[in-house]
Amino acid sequence: MQEQETITVQTTLTTDELLEHWQGHRRLTRKAIEAFPEDKLFTHSIGGMRTFGEMANELLVMGAPAAAGIAEPNKWLQFSDMETGELNIEPKTKKDILALWDWATDSINESWKKVTPERLRTTETAYGQYEGTIISHLFYLIDNEIHHRGQGYVYLRSLGIEPPFFWER
Amino acid sequence: MQEQETITVQTTLTTDELLEHWQGHRRLTRKAIEAFPEDKLFTHSIGGMRTFGEMANELLVMGAPAAAGIAEPNKWLQFSDMETGELNIEPKTKKDILALWDWATDSINESWKKVTPERLRTTETAYGQYEGTIISHLFYLIDNEIHHRGQGYVYLRSLGIEPPFFWER
Repeated sequence: MQEQETITVQTTLTTDELLEHWQGHRRLTRKAIEAFPEDKLFTHSIGGMRTFGEMANELLVMGAPAAAGIAEPNKWLQFSDMETGELNIEPKTKKDILALWDWATDSINESWKKVTPERLRTTETAYGQYEGTIISHLFYLIDNEIHHRGQGYVYLRSLGIEPPFFWER
Repeated sequence: MQEQETITVQTTLTTDELLEHWQGHRRLTRKAIEAFPEDKLFTHSIGGMRTFGEMANELLVMGAPAAAGIAEPNKWLQFSDMETGELNIEPKTKKDILALWDWATDSINESWKKVTPERLRTTETAYGQYEGTIISHLFYLIDNEIHHRGQGYVYLRSLGIEPPFFWER
């Protein structure tokens, strides 16, 4: 007779929680994009930095393709490799950006179905140049988004616009 | 005879890695503080926002006390409850801030010795008002720091100063 034992595996964060953490930040960044007046999104800048539209575009270019690479071994895609259908992948308006943003939300959710804790702890060189565990690549993406969104908040304040609440995801 | 079995417990992030993640961000924020000219740290501001000195002070007030609360049940201390020795807990200079920053680094490391995965997944109302798992409180602290540091980068750029590289922790 084989004995059975129940083992509680204690993880600090589940893969589902990591997805929700990222998507929560992405929902907040979406609100920050929406808060910009159309004409300022691609023109307003401080100290020679990029516009928030350009930063948001960087987040789009990085997000969904990297999620595919997080999900599966050696699958570091470019944004142009993704199936974006009729969407304008060189967004020039707030509407274009928000449409891509929502597409990326679904794409990331879809990629995430294949993410496992084991995969997240694998070391892999992303895009042939960034060495680290997959979860370190994930946090680079999330942290980079928080960083640039914080900059977008300064742009909004400098335009006299109140940014969305940081804690509302 | 009792059989033995080796079980590999797979977690996405260990408690040590979470500490290093936070301390890596704290090292970068320290560099951002250092990059400010003394006279601008407490005077320069954009759009009616706080100075970066005030934001850094918020991070100090939150960081080490919260680490104590992360480590042990129902121990949500105020900054004034901490043993800071001879340090000026109302910093008015860059030197004051950096001295507290280094004190906080040690204090957080010390608190972390008691942090377990089980503790991080416990739900507890921090400071009597923020309900959530302990790890969600930890990420709020880290994300809040990234957010404000990103704002500090805009301040630096607006002063014509190049901020530290985001990826150098």
